[in-house]
Amino acid sequence: MNELSLITAIRRWSAPKAAAPGLVAGIGDDCAIIRPRPSEDLLFTTDFLIEDVHFTRAEYTGIDTGWKALARGLSDIAAMGGDARYALVSLALAPWCCHNYVRDLYKGLNQLAGRHGVNIIGGDVTKTEKLSIDTIVIGAVPRGKALRRSGAKPGDVIYVSGALGRAAVKNYRDRPAPRLELGRKLRGKATACMDLSDGLAMDLHRLAMESGVAAELDGPLPSAPNATLEQALFGGEDYELLCTLPAGRRAPLELTRVGRIVEGKPGRVTLAGESLHPRGWDPLA
Amino acid sequence: MNELSLITAIRRWSAPKAAAPGLVAGIGDDCAIIRPRPSEDLLFTTDFLIEDVHFTRAEYTGIDTGWKALARGLSDIAAMGGDARYALVSLALAPWCCHNYVRDLYKGLNQLAGRHGVNIIGGDVTKTEKLSIDTIVIGAVPRGKALRRSGAKPGDVIYVSGALGRAAVKNYRDRPAPRLELGRKLRGKATACMDLSDGLAMDLHRLAMESGVAAELDGPLPSAPNATLEQALFGGEDYELLCTLPAGRRAPLELTRVGRIVEGKPGRVTLAGESLHPRGWDPLA
Repeated sequence: MNELSLITAIRRWSAPKAAAPGLVAGIGDDCAIIRPRPSEDLLFTTDFLIEDVHFTRAEYTGIDTGWKALARGLSDIAAMGGDARYALVSLALAPWCCHNYVRDLYKGLNQLAGRHGVNIIGGDVTKTEKLSIDTIVIGAVPRGKALRRSGAKPGDVIYVSGALGRAAVKNYRDRPAPRLELGRKLRGKATACMDLSDGLAMDLHRLAMESGVAAELDGPLPSAPNATLEQALFGGEDYELLCTLPAGRRAPLELTRVGRIVEGKPGRVTLAGESLHPRGWDPLA
Repeated sequence: MNELSLITAIRRWSAPKAAAPGLVAGIGDDCAIIRPRPSEDLLFTTDFLIEDVHFTRAEYTGIDTGWKALARGLSDIAAMGGDARYALVSLALAPWCCHNYVRDLYKGLNQLAGRHGVNIIGGDVTKTEKLSIDTIVIGAVPRGKALRRSGAKPGDVIYVSGALGRAAVKNYRDRPAPRLELGRKLRGKATACMDLSDGLAMDLHRLAMESGVAAELDGPLPSAPNATLEQALFGGEDYELLCTLPAGRRAPLELTRVGRIVEGKPGRVTLAGESLHPRGWDPLA
């Protein structure tokens, strides 16, 4: 396996299957080229997926790994209410990575990309000790309509989608399904939104901090079957959405009420009156 | 050092110093948000810089490393004739990386970013065995004006900027100066362009392959002082530009003629009549 032959194969695996509106040039030049639509803002996110930090060879197939590498970024696009359009994939291969493993990675990437109309338009290939995949996702949203973390107001109701702690119960081995459809429904409705990647306690702290408000969790939490309270509050990688809506506004059915926004120390989160420490999945801790 | 405190510091280090036209939101949300100009195409490139593959702790300061991490992507934008606008920086920190080292990395990133009016608008932070930096650069070019690898025609003259093998002579330790100004000058003039990252032999092979033509090197090569022919042909990381212009078109002064495009097997490169094997710096070889 050399760089030239691998890039040729990756280009074949990444050939646009569907219509790719706005794509002028994908893999094969120094840069990818996109022609943006004047009515849209563009969204950018980048996420690492690293062997023995975010996944292990023993527990993840190549297809699972590729899927998860893209899911993280798609979830960020969902959190802003965007459509996902393009991805770039930077690969640093470990010594054990063979051609067939990389092909499986791209199978996983393409399976998830295909569900959401995403085209892989570029990347980089190199080597290192532990397989490292950095995935960049480019999304689009009608001009000025991106959902932000910073708009929550006292009185707003706090919601989450899905079940909390599901990934923790499954030891983070399932294939996340990014909430792109729900994110789009929340455009023009939610006052603030983000995805749950590091656990409810940490992520709600961040949303409240950016909004300059405090948050009270009060409802029964929609925990996943067999999830402990610890897993529901501090387990990461659920890739569900956390959002706030004005009191009285009807919420999409996918959402469950978990509390409300209040005045107070920015970023403070309480559960039944007790302060929650903003801890969660922290790779640097 | 934990994730929350490091991201807070990175956000401070990356605060936009200059005007950032089109930047709606930088670091601090799930995605960065850009408002594109309708008259422009956007360019995207991503490049890894990895400890013990692209640099060593012993020979590179943190500032050098940050500089080089951004230089690679800026050079790709230069190769398309673009203006560099924004960067996202994904960091996977090694166990030895302390807060002050990361601060130095950002000093180096910001020194080079400041020269070219680039703002750092996002990224990711995690950990791994060897320090790994994936830098995404977003550039812009007037609509339809991006320089491509694929436009070289038989009869075109082949040029390179600067001196070949300079990085190889210096054992790849200098700070590359991406050729953004030259790239912009070549818009509307060059028939094909790319940057010299893997050495002239390999990169000219790629340009010729994308253009469906062959290439003959015939001029004396503009080798760097003390560079061997081997270093001038196969040494990578010069980050100079390689381009083709129609015969008779006056070339910018930064360029030196090295050969011409001919009909022949696509991708074939000859030097004084002898075929050159497309080898160069290949991390996977």
